[in-house]
Amino acid sequence: MSEWQRRHILSLADFSPAEYETVLRTASGFAEVLQRRNKKVPTLQGQVVTTLFFEPSTRTRSSFELAAKRLSADTINFAASSSSLSKGETILDTARTYLAMGSDIMVVRHAQAGVPQAIAREMERLGTQVRVLNAGDGQHEHPSQALLDLFTICSVVQPEQPSLSAIAGKKVAIVGDILHSRVARSNIWSLTAAGAEVHLAAPPTLLPPEFAQFADTPIPGSNAQRQLHVHWELEPALENADFVMTLRLQQERMSQSLLPSLREYHREFGLTRDRLRACQPTVKLLHPGPVNRGVELSSDLMEDESISLIQPQVTNGVAVRMALLYLIGAAVPAAVPA
Amino acid sequence: MSEWQRRHILSLADFSPAEYETVLRTASGFAEVLQRRNKKVPTLQGQVVTTLFFEPSTRTRSSFELAAKRLSADTINFAASSSSLSKGETILDTARTYLAMGSDIMVVRHAQAGVPQAIAREMERLGTQVRVLNAGDGQHEHPSQALLDLFTICSVVQPEQPSLSAIAGKKVAIVGDILHSRVARSNIWSLTAAGAEVHLAAPPTLLPPEFAQFADTPIPGSNAQRQLHVHWELEPALENADFVMTLRLQQERMSQSLLPSLREYHREFGLTRDRLRACQPTVKLLHPGPVNRGVELSSDLMEDESISLIQPQVTNGVAVRMALLYLIGAAVPAAVPA
Amino acid sequence: MSEWQRRHILSLADFSPAEYETVLRTASGFAEVLQRRNKKVPTLQGQVVTTLFFEPSTRTRSSFELAAKRLSADTINFAASSSSLSKGETILDTARTYLAMGSDIMVVRHAQAGVPQAIAREMERLGTQVRVLNAGDGQHEHPSQALLDLFTICSVVQPEQPSLSAIAGKKVAIVGDILHSRVARSNIWSLTAAGAEVHLAAPPTLLPPEFAQFADTPIPGSNAQRQLHVHWELEPALENADFVMTLRLQQERMSQSLLPSLREYHREFGLTRDRLRACQPTVKLLHPGPVNRGVELSSDLMEDESISLIQPQVTNGVAVRMALLYLIGAAVPAAVPA
Repeated sequence: MSEWQRRHILSLADFSPAEYETVLRTASGFAEVLQRRNKKVPTLQGQVVTTLFFEPSTRTRSSFELAAKRLSADTINFAASSSSLSKGETILDTARTYLAMGSDIMVVRHAQAGVPQAIAREMERLGTQVRVLNAGDGQHEHPSQALLDLFTICSVVQPEQPSLSAIAGKKVAIVGDILHSRVARSNIWSLTAAGAEVHLAAPPTLLPPEFAQFADTPIPGSNAQRQLHVHWELEPALENADFVMTLRLQQERMSQSLLPSLREYHREFGLTRDRLRACQPTVKLLHPGPVNRGVELSSDLMEDESISLIQPQVTNGVAVRMALLYLIGAAVPAAVPA
Repeated sequence: MSEWQRRHILSLADFSPAEYETVLRTASGFAEVLQRRNKKVPTLQGQVVTTLFFEPSTRTRSSFELAAKRLSADTINFAASSSSLSKGETILDTARTYLAMGSDIMVVRHAQAGVPQAIAREMERLGTQVRVLNAGDGQHEHPSQALLDLFTICSVVQPEQPSLSAIAGKKVAIVGDILHSRVARSNIWSLTAAGAEVHLAAPPTLLPPEFAQFADTPIPGSNAQRQLHVHWELEPALENADFVMTLRLQQERMSQSLLPSLREYHREFGLTRDRLRACQPTVKLLHPGPVNRGVELSSDLMEDESISLIQPQVTNGVAVRMALLYLIGAAVPAAVPA
Repeated sequence: MSEWQRRHILSLADFSPAEYETVLRTASGFAEVLQRRNKKVPTLQGQVVTTLFFEPSTRTRSSFELAAKRLSADTINFAASSSSLSKGETILDTARTYLAMGSDIMVVRHAQAGVPQAIAREMERLGTQVRVLNAGDGQHEHPSQALLDLFTICSVVQPEQPSLSAIAGKKVAIVGDILHSRVARSNIWSLTAAGAEVHLAAPPTLLPPEFAQFADTPIPGSNAQRQLHVHWELEPALENADFVMTLRLQQERMSQSLLPSLREYHREFGLTRDRLRACQPTVKLLHPGPVNRGVELSSDLMEDESISLIQPQVTNGVAVRMALLYLIGAAVPAAVPA
């Protein structure tokens, strides 16, 4: 069993299979806690988890907040709208302020890529023990989402003790606005490193050929290579797929002339019961939410619990985030700024 | 002593006297807890109370939040403004998301009637144990407000152990914008079921004759009938009244041509010390707050603690909401979505 | 050792040296708690601290919220934007509502001077035990900020056990928009009462000669007098200063024609490394934050930890606020409105 070494969780690009296994194993333990009537454990009692959300998000923030509360941490929310940013403070000034107030872990979301990384660097430069968790940075990464997706997929195959062996050799299709999706980027890293064969499918405007460059690249801490395929049509991605993940389509892509219309998109890349017939009979469907019903997938598919993993994704999100806070947080000494 | 059977609290239309007695008795116990220095009890430790407020409300949300915290529950707030509703999610999608995160009890407010009911149905359809509490739906009902009003009235007569016998045969006047008031609707159910003689008074534009149809209808779990009277003038309602409840007048009623002016309204239906002379000498005044001073009632009446029950209503609100969360929540097994 | 007598903390104008010593000693104890891994103490368990912020402030509210949580209190936030104030309720109505819900301590911020005082008077008039803490009222006072500044200054000289002896005879310059600053007003009271020699420096439009009237006035509970000097140039204030405190410059002062331009202001009163050469070699710099970089002080000064106390100010803010909540709150019986 590997000891956890990572101080921050900013990107999955350099995660090793051993690290994924540790996340799965830890999340599995917390998923059991969440079945109990009393869902709290004292792990982070007396520690402070600060959510620094420079971009609004109810869903992800609630999930992290619940995860932190169930670990008995105190939580403080910073939302940009109510912020002193309007008063001319820089992002790092804000982070330093919440550092100085005694934050032990910062969960950071920002519309620009690289902000959580910049905050993590600053925390280290200042010699602090603060941990930083990327809760979504621009179109870059959203590691906790990809880790909950991984946990959800592995749990389907191995409900008792999910591990990477559950996903080895499985075909996973990722469909939709891959170009603009931090969820897709993080999932490409995690799923390929976990041994899945990942097939991307989208119109060319949302899936530039450069994504193919990650195919056959080495996986950190492993002798295997990433198995990745790029398609500009839906069919080859769905064929015999074990899992299909659709991405949320931002309405603004239309006005940017990247897509003709929502109806057109649904006709070409929207998932329907009919289309899923090309997949394995046991195929399961994932979506990071919230869903545009009738765009990325049909309403009936979304609500068919024999196919859709959307609800388990949300439930597992709390367990996985508890695991991440636990792994980076449990060993944190008191945050004492110099 | 009756065992509590009700899973959700959505409407008071079918509440029986026995159920009201259980609420009064339970709230009375919590009211005592609130007198202590340490106002917390461990009843809901490790459970999650989610406030889903699609319509903003500081006062009611704070009251529920405090009630939940004093029962040692964890609380998560969802406010529509900061919501993913803007992202095209439906209300039921939002509820399912907070279900999947592990909510045990949902406290729901929405500007449209029927939303808490729809969420409760969905929670049952999904086979979950989640409890739903209506915190105000459109112009339909606001059960926790009516129950705190009932507790407040009974406590005046029987401070030690408030019960329905305190209100039997008492005359209660409800004055104001009854047509648009969810508070009035819920109070009509509770006060008549509790054995009070309820007199409604308002201008005809705010009190259609249809309200009289509830007179002499049966009370669930009782052989008695509802005693209800409709008046388009204030005087007959106030005459010998034991309790007078005024309702908040929404300013927008003016622009809807339902009322000539605030001054006019106050002259016809506003409560003053002079007008209350027609009531019983021990008359007490209730208002759900916030008060438009000088409209629904004069400022001096509002602040006269020998007459006004406005402050006790707020205090009792926390005790009654603790009782409701306790009654529906204490027996809830862990919420495990399928 | 003096027993704490003060029920509310509204202004520092009448604070005695003995009271400052009690605050320093108590905060020092809590500063040690904050070094621990588990930063919580059970002092205010079961009590309710309500932040009534009629003026938005993320930073100060987070600091009070963290302080309250670390004392194990329950916290409720009232923010004016989400408020029923828009519904025509008065400020005292809002305060009475949160009183009735069971608040033990109210932390009040308002854009108008005198609001916390009015709420405190109302709480006493109603015969309640509620404590009120001024978290900034208009251009009047901001006591907790001045007390954390005092603690920070004394801690620099006496890290182990900060006391007023650390500041006796020290020269402290306060530079900037003194006229509009509640921080400056509170600091003038505390620093002079603590025995420091305070020098104010600002353009005449931001520092009217009336400020000189406080020079040589008596200090409550002391035989000494306040040592205060007014300058309309920076140099005499900085000369041999031990501590320099700059104030935040509100951008709107420009549009009010009180200042020609930010650049002009920085050229005349902005702090730079070069200017600080006139001070003591050990000079330290304070700023209440958030900083307008390049206006009140240069970015490099702000980040030079050998000079800037900005981060320690924030950290000490939590300890000092814990001390204040403890001192006024620990002896509070349950808040039972009549």
